[in-house]
Amino acid sequence: MNYGVVIKVLGNLLLFEAVALLLPLIVSILYGEKSAMAFLLVIAILIIVGKLMSRLKLDSKQIRSKEGLMIVTGGWVLASFFGALPFVFSGSIPSFIDAFFETVSGLTTTGSTLLDNIEALPRGILFWRSFTHWIGGMGILVLTLAILPAMGVGGFQIFKAESPGPVSDKLAPKIRDTASILYTAYLGLTIMQIVILLFGKLPLYDAAVHTFGTVGTGGLSIYQNSIGAYKSSYVVMVIAIFMIASGVNFSLYYELYRGNWKAFFRDSELKLYLFIIAISVLLITANLFYKGIYQSLFETFKHALFQTASIITTTGYVTVDYEKWTSFSQGILFLLMFVGGCAGSTAGSMKVIRLLVLFKLVAREISKILHPRAILPIRVNGKTVSPDIIAGICSFFFLYIFFFVVGTLLVLLEGVDLLTASSAVAATLGNVGPGFNMVGPTQTFSAFSGASKLLFSFLMLLGRLEIYTIFILLMPRFWQERI
Amino acid sequence: MNYGVVIKVLGNLLLFEAVALLLPLIVSILYGEKSAMAFLLVIAILIIVGKLMSRLKLDSKQIRSKEGLMIVTGGWVLASFFGALPFVFSGSIPSFIDAFFETVSGLTTTGSTLLDNIEALPRGILFWRSFTHWIGGMGILVLTLAILPAMGVGGFQIFKAESPGPVSDKLAPKIRDTASILYTAYLGLTIMQIVILLFGKLPLYDAAVHTFGTVGTGGLSIYQNSIGAYKSSYVVMVIAIFMIASGVNFSLYYELYRGNWKAFFRDSELKLYLFIIAISVLLITANLFYKGIYQSLFETFKHALFQTASIITTTGYVTVDYEKWTSFSQGILFLLMFVGGCAGSTAGSMKVIRLLVLFKLVAREISKILHPRAILPIRVNGKTVSPDIIAGICSFFFLYIFFFVVGTLLVLLEGVDLLTASSAVAATLGNVGPGFNMVGPTQTFSAFSGASKLLFSFLMLLGRLEIYTIFILLMPRFWQERI
Repeated sequence: MNYGVVIKVLGNLLLFEAVALLLPLIVSILYGEKSAMAFLLVIAILIIVGKLMSRLKLDSKQIRSKEGLMIVTGGWVLASFFGALPFVFSGSIPSFIDAFFETVSGLTTTGSTLLDNIEALPRGILFWRSFTHWIGGMGILVLTLAILPAMGVGGFQIFKAESPGPVSDKLAPKIRDTASILYTAYLGLTIMQIVILLFGKLPLYDAAVHTFGTVGTGGLSIYQNSIGAYKSSYVVMVIAIFMIASGVNFSLYYELYRGNWKAFFRDSELKLYLFIIAISVLLITANLFYKGIYQSLFETFKHALFQTASIITTTGYVTVDYEKWTSFSQGILFLLMFVGGCAGSTAGSMKVIRLLVLFKLVAREISKILHPRAILPIRVNGKTVSPDIIAGICSFFFLYIFFFVVGTLLVLLEGVDLLTASSAVAATLGNVGPGFNMVGPTQTFSAFSGASKLLFSFLMLLGRLEIYTIFILLMPRFWQERI
Repeated sequence: MNYGVVIKVLGNLLLFEAVALLLPLIVSILYGEKSAMAFLLVIAILIIVGKLMSRLKLDSKQIRSKEGLMIVTGGWVLASFFGALPFVFSGSIPSFIDAFFETVSGLTTTGSTLLDNIEALPRGILFWRSFTHWIGGMGILVLTLAILPAMGVGGFQIFKAESPGPVSDKLAPKIRDTASILYTAYLGLTIMQIVILLFGKLPLYDAAVHTFGTVGTGGLSIYQNSIGAYKSSYVVMVIAIFMIASGVNFSLYYELYRGNWKAFFRDSELKLYLFIIAISVLLITANLFYKGIYQSLFETFKHALFQTASIITTTGYVTVDYEKWTSFSQGILFLLMFVGGCAGSTAGSMKVIRLLVLFKLVAREISKILHPRAILPIRVNGKTVSPDIIAGICSFFFLYIFFFVVGTLLVLLEGVDLLTASSAVAATLGNVGPGFNMVGPTQTFSAFSGASKLLFSFLMLLGRLEIYTIFILLMPRFWQERI
C-alpha cells in the first residue's frame, strides 16, 4: 500500500472542506451568530492538518485500486469527523458521537437526525448541516460516474455495463471532463430549484437549504416537521418533482444537453424508475382515498406523490406523518426504501438498474426451462450485460440483504421492536432518513445508545459507498495480500 | 401439451391417495369414530375419479418438461383438494376453503393451522391431518431428488451441481432405484423416531402423529399447545434431534448406509447447516439466560435448541410462546425462517446450499476486486458449480424475496400490521408454520379472510415446489409456445 499518496489526497480533501465551510461561515456572519467562531476555528484546523498532509513528499504517485478504496472510505470518514466539529464547538450538538452521526447522515445524503429541537439551532449551523448533503451528493456523483470506473475497480460498477463500447460511447474520455459535466448538471439543477422555489415566495435561506437536501437526495430539514412546515402545495410539488429529477442517472442529463432525447427517453432504467413511482403513487392514492385519510383527491395524491418520491430517491423529507396511513401504504414505502433511484444519481439504496437486471435474470431462467439449449444474453438498452456484471449485481443484492439482516439483529440487542430495528437499518443502509415506529417521521434517532449510533453511522457509509468499497477494507486479505 | 398423459398420471396419484386414506380410516374405526364414514366416502370418490382419469387411452406416453411441471403442480393441488374432503364431510372443518388451507398446509409440510380448538376433533381426522405431512414429505423427497433431475428441468435444481460427474457419482442410475432408496431412509427415520418416542412413554398414537410432523418437517400437532403439551424433556429433545436429522440432505443418508462417512461429514452444506444451528442456539441461549427468561440454563438451552431446530427445518412445532422472548431472539427465529434445511431434505424455504453458494459468490467478488484478472470458479464439495447453476440460485433468491414482498403487500390490504403480514407470508412461503403477532405460536390463521387464506395456500404451494415449478405455469408463454 502506498500510504503516502493516500495521506496526500486526503489532505487535499480537507483543504477542500475548509473552502466549503466558508459558505456557512458567511451565513453565520450575515445573521450575526456566534457560531461563526466555531466555523473559523474548524477552518483553521482543516487548513493546518490539510496542509501538513498534502505537503508529504512522495516516492510514487501511483494510485491503484487499493489506494483508491482507502482514499474513498478515508475521505468520507475524515470529512465527517472534521465536519462534525462545528456542531460541537458551537455547542449545538455537544456530544461528539451525536455530531458525527449527524454529519455522516449529511455527507452520505441520508437525512436521519438526532435533533429533537431543530428550530433552536443557529441558522449558520443548520445551513452547514444541509450543505453537507450538497457536498456529499456531488461527491457521490463524481465517485460513481467518474472515479470508480476509471480506477477499474471491478465487479460493483454497473456503468461498465452501460458503456462497454468504443470511446465515443463513454460520457467523456477523461475523468476531469466527466466530472466537470457532472458539476454543471448538478449546479444547474440546484440553481433551477432555488429559483423556482423563490417564485413560490420561499425565503432564499429556506429555498437554498431545502434545495441542498433535494438535489443531494438528503432530507435533513431546518424544521422539525420537515417539508410539512410549508402549507403551500406549490412548494411541496416543486420539491417532489426535483427529488424525482435528482434520482435520475446524471449522465442522462448530459445526453439531454447533447440533444440526444432518444437516449434519455428510451433508457430502460429510467422507464422502470418512473414506472415504479407511478404505480406506487397510484396504489397509495387509491388506498388512502378509499380509506378517507385525506379530504380531497388532490390532497391525497400530493402526499402520496411526495412520500413516494421522497422514499424511492432516498431523500427522506416528509410532509405528513405517514405512520397514520394504512399498513398497506406504509408497506409500499418500506419496500421503496430498498429500491433507491437510478444508478449515477445522488440516490442511495440498491438502485433501479440492479433490480432491472435481476428481473431480466429471472425472465431468462424461465426461458431456460422452456428452451434448455437456447443461449440467452441479458440486454439493457440494447447492450449485452456481461456475466461478470450480473454476478456482481447478484452478489451486491445478497450482500445488501445480509447487512440489512445483521444490522437489524445488532439493533435488536437494544431491546427495541422488530419494526423499529429493521426500518432504522433499512433507512440508514439505504441512506433514506426516517423509518417507522421509534424512528418514524415524527421521531428521531436520539433514543438509541452511542454504540447503535456508531453502527448507524457505519451503515450509512456502507450503503453510500456501495458496500464493497468499505466491506473489502474489513477483509484481512486486503491488508495481507500484495496487490 | 400432452394433456392425456397429465390426466392419466394425476389419476394414478388420486388412486394412491385413496390407499393413503386407508390408514386414517383404520384409526377412525379403531377409535369407533363416525368420521370413518367420511373417509370411506372420500376413498370411494377418489377411486371413481382416479379410475376414470387413469383409464384414458393415450396417443403418446411422452412426458416432457411441460407435462412434468403440470403433473407436479396439478398433483399437489388435486391431492389437497380431495384431501380436504374428509375434514368437510366429517364436519370437523365445515368451510371448504378452511379445509383446503389445512390440507395444503399438511401436504406442503408447512404446519400453519386455522384450528382454534384442535383437541375437539376426532382422532382419525387429526391422524389424517398429520399423515398429510408424511405423504407430502415423501413426495418432496422423490420430487427433488429423483423426478426433477431426471426430467432435466433446468436451472432450479441444485442437485445437478452436486452430481455432474459420471454415473457412479449419481445416487442411483434410475429414478425407481433412487426413489426406493429414499423410501427406505424416510421409513427408517420414521420407525426409529416412533420407537424412541415410545421409550419416552408416549402413547403410540401421539408418537406416530408427531413423528409424521417431524420427519416431514411439517409441524401440525394434535394439541393447541403443540409440543408444549408434553412436560417431558426427553420427548422435546428427541423431537428436536429428529427435526434436525430431517433437515439433512437425504442422499447423505444413502452415503452413510454405503459406509461413506467421509462424504457425510465433509459435506459443505451439512457443515454450514449445523454451524447455523449451533450459532443460533448459542446466541439465543446466552441472550435468554442473561435476561433470565427461564430459570435454569438447561431449560433455556432446551427451548433455544427446540425452536431453532423447529424454525430452521421449517417444521414449526413450538414448546413455548417465543413471543415472550427478547426481540433479538425473535429476530433470529424470523431470520431462520428464510434459511430452511438442506436441499434434498423435507425442509422448505431457501435451503442452506443456496446461501452457501451466495456466500461463495460474494467471496469471489471480493477476490475479483483484489485480483481483477484471476479466474475463480466457485466450488462446493470440491466440484465446480457451473455459472448456469449460480445464475439459477441468484434468480431463485431474488424471486423468493420478490414473492415475500408482494405477498406481504397483499396481506397488508387486510389492514393487519407489518409484522403479522410479513411473518405470515414468510411462514407460509417458507413452509414453516407459525409466525409472529397475529399468527404467533399461540395464535392461528383463522382471523384472515377467505381471499387471504387462498393466498396463503398459494404461497405454501409456491414455496414447496421451489417457486419456478408453479411460477412458470403463470406465464402466458408457457401456454403459447410449442416446446
